[in-house]
Amino acid sequence: MGQADGWRALVAGRLLHGGLRWGLAMADGGGLFGGLFGAGGARTGDTAWLQAMLDTEAALARAAERAGVAAAGSGAAVTAAADASLFDLDALGQAAARTGNPVPALVRELRSLVNGPAARAVHAGATSQDILDTAAMLLARQSLTAILADLARAADAAAALAAEHDETIMIGRTLLQQAVPVTFGLVAAGWLTGLDEAREDVARVAATRLAVQFGGAAGTLAALGEAGPRVAGLLAEELGLAAPPLPWHTGRLRLVQVAAAAAGAAAVTGKLARDVTLLAQSEIAEVSEGGEGRGGSSAMPHKHNPVVAILILGCTKRIPGLLATLAAAAEQEHQRAAGAWHAEWETFADLLRLTGSAAAWTADLLSGLRVDADRMRANLDAAGGFPMAEQVAALLAPVLGPTQAHDLVARASASAALAGLPLADALTTGETGHTITAAGITKVQLSDALDPAAYLGSASVFTQAALAAHRATTQRLSQPDSFRTG
Amino acid sequence: MGQADGWRALVAGRLLHGGLRWGLAMADGGGLFGGLFGAGGARTGDTAWLQAMLDTEAALARAAERAGVAAAGSGAAVTAAADASLFDLDALGQAAARTGNPVPALVRELRSLVNGPAARAVHAGATSQDILDTAAMLLARQSLTAILADLARAADAAAALAAEHDETIMIGRTLLQQAVPVTFGLVAAGWLTGLDEAREDVARVAATRLAVQFGGAAGTLAALGEAGPRVAGLLAEELGLAAPPLPWHTGRLRLVQVAAAAAGAAAVTGKLARDVTLLAQSEIAEVSEGGEGRGGSSAMPHKHNPVVAILILGCTKRIPGLLATLAAAAEQEHQRAAGAWHAEWETFADLLRLTGSAAAWTADLLSGLRVDADRMRANLDAAGGFPMAEQVAALLAPVLGPTQAHDLVARASASAALAGLPLADALTTGETGHTITAAGITKVQLSDALDPAAYLGSASVFTQAALAAHRATTQRLSQPDSFRTG
Amino acid sequence: MGQADGWRALVAGRLLHGGLRWGLAMADGGGLFGGLFGAGGARTGDTAWLQAMLDTEAALARAAERAGVAAAGSGAAVTAAADASLFDLDALGQAAARTGNPVPALVRELRSLVNGPAARAVHAGATSQDILDTAAMLLARQSLTAILADLARAADAAAALAAEHDETIMIGRTLLQQAVPVTFGLVAAGWLTGLDEAREDVARVAATRLAVQFGGAAGTLAALGEAGPRVAGLLAEELGLAAPPLPWHTGRLRLVQVAAAAAGAAAVTGKLARDVTLLAQSEIAEVSEGGEGRGGSSAMPHKHNPVVAILILGCTKRIPGLLATLAAAAEQEHQRAAGAWHAEWETFADLLRLTGSAAAWTADLLSGLRVDADRMRANLDAAGGFPMAEQVAALLAPVLGPTQAHDLVARASASAALAGLPLADALTTGETGHTITAAGITKVQLSDALDPAAYLGSASVFTQAALAAHRATTQRLSQPDSFRTG
Amino acid sequence: MGQADGWRALVAGRLLHGGLRWGLAMADGGGLFGGLFGAGGARTGDTAWLQAMLDTEAALARAAERAGVAAAGSGAAVTAAADASLFDLDALGQAAARTGNPVPALVRELRSLVNGPAARAVHAGATSQDILDTAAMLLARQSLTAILADLARAADAAAALAAEHDETIMIGRTLLQQAVPVTFGLVAAGWLTGLDEAREDVARVAATRLAVQFGGAAGTLAALGEAGPRVAGLLAEELGLAAPPLPWHTGRLRLVQVAAAAAGAAAVTGKLARDVTLLAQSEIAEVSEGGEGRGGSSAMPHKHNPVVAILILGCTKRIPGLLATLAAAAEQEHQRAAGAWHAEWETFADLLRLTGSAAAWTADLLSGLRVDADRMRANLDAAGGFPMAEQVAALLAPVLGPTQAHDLVARASASAALAGLPLADALTTGETGHTITAAGITKVQLSDALDPAAYLGSASVFTQAALAAHRATTQRLSQPDSFRTG
Repeated sequence: MGQADGWRALVAGRLLHGGLRWGLAMADGGGLFGGLFGAGGARTGDTAWLQAMLDTEAALARAAERAGVAAAGSGAAVTAAADASLFDLDALGQAAARTGNPVPALVRELRSLVNGPAARAVHAGATSQDILDTAAMLLARQSLTAILADLARAADAAAALAAEHDETIMIGRTLLQQAVPVTFGLVAAGWLTGLDEAREDVARVAATRLAVQFGGAAGTLAALGEAGPRVAGLLAEELGLAAPPLPWHTGRLRLVQVAAAAAGAAAVTGKLARDVTLLAQSEIAEVSEGGEGRGGSSAMPHKHNPVVAILILGCTKRIPGLLATLAAAAEQEHQRAAGAWHAEWETFADLLRLTGSAAAWTADLLSGLRVDADRMRANLDAAGGFPMAEQVAALLAPVLGPTQAHDLVARASASAALAGLPLADALTTGETGHTITAAGITKVQLSDALDPAAYLGSASVFTQAALAAHRATTQRLSQPDSFRTG
Repeated sequence: MGQADGWRALVAGRLLHGGLRWGLAMADGGGLFGGLFGAGGARTGDTAWLQAMLDTEAALARAAERAGVAAAGSGAAVTAAADASLFDLDALGQAAARTGNPVPALVRELRSLVNGPAARAVHAGATSQDILDTAAMLLARQSLTAILADLARAADAAAALAAEHDETIMIGRTLLQQAVPVTFGLVAAGWLTGLDEAREDVARVAATRLAVQFGGAAGTLAALGEAGPRVAGLLAEELGLAAPPLPWHTGRLRLVQVAAAAAGAAAVTGKLARDVTLLAQSEIAEVSEGGEGRGGSSAMPHKHNPVVAILILGCTKRIPGLLATLAAAAEQEHQRAAGAWHAEWETFADLLRLTGSAAAWTADLLSGLRVDADRMRANLDAAGGFPMAEQVAALLAPVLGPTQAHDLVARASASAALAGLPLADALTTGETGHTITAAGITKVQLSDALDPAAYLGSASVFTQAALAAHRATTQRLSQPDSFRTG
Repeated sequence: MGQADGWRALVAGRLLHGGLRWGLAMADGGGLFGGLFGAGGARTGDTAWLQAMLDTEAALARAAERAGVAAAGSGAAVTAAADASLFDLDALGQAAARTGNPVPALVRELRSLVNGPAARAVHAGATSQDILDTAAMLLARQSLTAILADLARAADAAAALAAEHDETIMIGRTLLQQAVPVTFGLVAAGWLTGLDEAREDVARVAATRLAVQFGGAAGTLAALGEAGPRVAGLLAEELGLAAPPLPWHTGRLRLVQVAAAAAGAAAVTGKLARDVTLLAQSEIAEVSEGGEGRGGSSAMPHKHNPVVAILILGCTKRIPGLLATLAAAAEQEHQRAAGAWHAEWETFADLLRLTGSAAAWTADLLSGLRVDADRMRANLDAAGGFPMAEQVAALLAPVLGPTQAHDLVARASASAALAGLPLADALTTGETGHTITAAGITKVQLSDALDPAAYLGSASVFTQAALAAHRATTQRLSQPDSFRTG
Repeated sequence: MGQADGWRALVAGRLLHGGLRWGLAMADGGGLFGGLFGAGGARTGDTAWLQAMLDTEAALARAAERAGVAAAGSGAAVTAAADASLFDLDALGQAAARTGNPVPALVRELRSLVNGPAARAVHAGATSQDILDTAAMLLARQSLTAILADLARAADAAAALAAEHDETIMIGRTLLQQAVPVTFGLVAAGWLTGLDEAREDVARVAATRLAVQFGGAAGTLAALGEAGPRVAGLLAEELGLAAPPLPWHTGRLRLVQVAAAAAGAAAVTGKLARDVTLLAQSEIAEVSEGGEGRGGSSAMPHKHNPVVAILILGCTKRIPGLLATLAAAAEQEHQRAAGAWHAEWETFADLLRLTGSAAAWTADLLSGLRVDADRMRANLDAAGGFPMAEQVAALLAPVLGPTQAHDLVARASASAALAGLPLADALTTGETGHTITAAGITKVQLSDALDPAAYLGSASVFTQAALAAHRATTQRLSQPDSFRTG
């Protein structure tokens, strides 16, 4: 129930109780590198952290009041004071060194702002970790929401490319060598499927794995007596997060799972960005980035660098190391970890920020991608028929046997390449030509086998399947309850 | 549909078409370290790889025959020859260096074993990557099946501990310091919830993310003409794997997701193994490992080391690095990656093997764990009442205000600790005693506040919730269709 | 020569040409977590980056002037304008998204500040990467200098502990079990040796691996005609960095080596911080942190957490993932990498910041560490003689043979432990006692074998060797030329 | 002294005392993937581990005899029995699960082979970790020796390429876009410098950081009484390893440093392999691999894949994750780690094996690399003069100012590219042509500025500097004492 609510809050992009305040957040895009690696809507900077902690404290006060363990009016009073703009970030940060985290100083400050009986509702029954962990979940929800929106935008753009280029023929490349013909539609469909599968995974963890952490000093909520579970449930309700069966202070699977889903999404964007940088190489030039005025060089006036794809890679290449740190940090001692917990804070925020940035750049990249179908065809034609070698071998296999056919064509390819001639020449002359004729293969058969447009196999079938799956994903992600697992 | 089938095969532990042959697999537990890091049922050694590749080739021949693109009898003929014991592993390995992977040599060898028209059904329409990737999925299925069985055994053992020790009081420890009382039942419930959540995730990826890879040279299945998708679908059916919308040769999200789910499970076992090593410390001695004859030292005859927990950590500490490698390797170029794909093979196998080993050791560890409830109580009693400081502060807070109450008790704790006295002494004497009396707190109230058994809060509620969730998970995992997502 | 200069600058802690401006740098200790993870003297925040880039541009202008390729006065004019406080960080960051890095915008801004003929000296012959990479080297030098100072402080403190506690007996612990006696002096000597070896390595990379990057558009310095190498050499001289044989734009070994040396230092601090958290456990309590007022808990007034050791671990646990990112990013394409280079910037800065923070906290930790020798002795005495089992086995081995002796003592240990008796009891009674007596072992021999103080072996010899090595390291690090390798 | 000896043993490639037995080692190149990822001379498989452990035990027995703590003849007797072929690997591996490592079973087996008084010399004063850690150092020495030999071969090949192609002009590429002209000599010189710097680092750690680990139960060598340091010193001498100031059982910096140096070498090979895969792309085709018969495809008969470069990348992409595991595992508890130590064994061996494989493949790759200078020139000529844009801008800058010059040429480049014309056309016609003429630039000046051969800057100077540095490195590495640091 809490999870369905959480999901609805997510889909609506509504940020309960703290929503309007995100505007205060120090733009993550600020600073020297923020425009590069803090693009997108994920907000994980200091102000976002602070406000999320305050939102948690405010929700706790409201929950405590509703549960009858705090004075009437406490919730409203604490909520009013729980405004990041009223706090001195740097002072909190310096005070944090005394206790190892910023919460104790925050609590004292918040209590002093509230005053009166409501002050007792501040931090009721909680320990520092409750506040920081729940705040991390709020940050994750905000970030995953932004990431999902950008991934959806990216997937729609990939779908448009796949549909438009269903018949745009180009050379496929394996191990960075020209292989056999494919379509650009199929290439874009591959990107699309990755994006859609990543969306499903991110949506799943956002809907099912974001939960309140609330356990008090060591996970028993002893300070709240019998009211513990009730306050915990109301806290979850106030924040639109799930209520877990028991506190997860040293059970970090949720964090690892959120990070892994984000890392999966980042990996998908990294793959397609890598493709774009390769397809945009001067010698290939089959795609280029849109974006007026982007991609210039300080030294070389003629350059048009694929800046956006590069920035995506600049983000995604950092994710695996951060994911490893979080996975390793999951080995946490007893009821609160001595160091492994602390190692998570900036790491988790960086991972969300970079994934958000990669997702946003990807939406931009695919929306503006310029595809040069003529150049694709020209590159294919310039390939001298070599990409059709497999098809020729297949033509010969029934007569010569697969191994002999493969080897004959391999030799012909080698000698044509050596002589700088098209494959067709090597197949129709000399001993090879004789062998083929002797095998009863006609010129028309050979010519057909050398036509790339006739050798696209199931490219279009696959592209259409990816488009159908995209529609299904989009449909499913608008029906949040499909993700409820309990 | 394919996925539901895949799931049923998984749950049944039935290994289609290759099942009986796993017995041939070189025990992963062999070799100098295999008894340590290759424990458990996951089979990912060379023979397992080879047989999985052969199973894929055999299934492909059967699928080709069923689709009408291979001669009648081809499937049976290839299947008969696809037996790892007929192949020379080392020779294949050496030949692999010519092409960069062992499949081409395998195909030639298999064709020569089959002979006749069926030879043409070998590797029909496929490329090396189709065989290796699909084999990796078969390895993953076998490994995840074994991992799930061991995680289930471990979870049942954790549930038994949680139920048995629901009222076993012990000191909770945060930041490696004694904190407030908890129960061992709650500790075990925390392990249990982690194991159950990991099981859900592993079962989910096993049921939904294991899919055939079949795309031919560059993902179009051009060599099969129009028959491509039909052969692909039948291949999936033959192997009990899902049929993806399109080939995933350079879309590696599936691999990353399988690895991440396994890494999550490993992280859960690492956390509890860390707890066991800490609780088993000579000075704490609240738990010890069963296992007769285990844990001796070559140098120190008196030692009883927590060997099993240590081996779990010896496995789990290697997982984050392997996961990072796989996540980074997901950046794959065009239609086949030049290096990143190759980096996955041993890494993926190692990750599955180590997770399998950790899961198996965990089932052993929890099944045999010896819990010393008397020692737990003794350690708590020896704590001098300090763990009750929070409760005393809570008692005083309504009268003195939360901050003043906190600070008063902090000072009393410090002076009692300094003097080597129980906390009670410092609270009833001197200025502190006076302040407390003056605040109207009675001796009985103070004494009650100092009783750990009265300060367990919701420990039992949480433990029971975890046990209920465990029953639900076990129930759900016997109803495979709940995981179908399409 | 350049390297010796670089070294002298390093040892002196003098920051050439930009020295006074570091004071402007946004304290890395700012923000919500800066007090925790940005402690120490390493400055790697935005302002530090910006000033380092400006210092590079200024040095380049001076070098160009000295080489005769820029107008007289250019150096001074550009140097005067190269002041971070004159630039709008956020504006540069936003403009960076157009080109993929902040340098082009910086260059335009700097040129507009300079005006006149000197404007042509700005960025003479350079490309963006030259500025960013050289700035990274300047950041590294400043950070490594700070790290070395803190490591030296930490090593001196460890040496003082080792010397003071050369005879302080305590129980050694292996696999988290009590093993045989050691001294705390030996424990501290182990920390000391790690710190000293890390210092040697950090000093080595600081003195030999920090080099100017200056290659122009693609590493030929073509824009400077024949003056290229001369300008490059003068640039190195101006900055006190080494001049490499050729530009290293896509040869990233230097970065990896600096990161690895820092990571090694961090690993050493992590090991000792782990020891401190374990020795400070409530049940062991052999050490505690100094630091008045540190280590309190928001929920539990009685707690005295080892906050500093925890913060060290909170830093060090993040280093391996960052190191892996940098090592992976070293795979850079052609003459400038598309993404891998970009992934380094924040990662390298984070790694330096966190290592700096760990080093600073370690110096604090060891300087203030409280060692409770009485508690150490009490814990040892409470061990019931079991830690002497090895010695007893050694006493028996010449008579019974090593295997039989080991097994006899192992059985005696087990039965004594089971009965809750000291080891001595099990060795002097029953069949075991009989066997020992029959073997001709006297009571005095047995009693001597059970005396821990007589079983310290070479503890003191090793401790003194570590102290001697410490003096040698300190001596060597004051003679910089020993590190010159060319 | 021990270190100089160690170094001499290393340079000579002589493997003291165990030399001849390495032949027994199960070829690491065995198995399904061994031909790919176990190429090269590094031996880190099970037999190599076992023999290294036996070599350590044998050396210890000889050292004990020399120190007078073991009977005369013990050394020879144990050495005779310390032959891996006499042991059952699988049995040892299974027994290892009882104690958590294979040493106790090995010791019992070895003692039973020796018999008589010499049996007491087996494992004298040692603990399991002493044997495993010292064996790891022996493995490292053997592997690093092989790696150094292959890196030297690779560097010599790179030097030959650099020298031969000092004047081979080609287009430089930044961010995967054509930039300005370079030479292939300079490209090869960049690879060379990386290889040489890696050699220096690997040689340094091999000569200075490989040390005996010998501390007994908890690092005091108590079981040896006063003889400890003397036996330790003789053990180091017997094995040709350094004698450390004190045992390093939980001070893992040596392991991290060896791993980091190897990882640095791997990173260098990964960079050049990436370049080769890119330069070998069908559309670029400036280099190709030699190696007859290598690089075929099972599906596509025409392909000539850069298999060797791909296999290098298949190795190097796995190193960062392994390095991170080792760096993280350096956080080891007290006197022996519970898990972190165990996590090192296979990881360290894998890292050495993969680095060895990458180094061997690199030597092959560079020795056989085919460079197509004509194609390089053709690709450059096909670039339409755009790579000269920087030079043209430089020509105009003194007249128009640098920013205006840059922008004018950028606009001309864009319009020429759009029109499919060479840059020269856009510079000589229309308004741009007018501006340039008006600025007083002559046609000859413009034509000169558009000549790539005149725009190579310091390419040759840098290439020659790298060649000189290579000679110096080769010279230095034949004078081992330069690495002695004490």
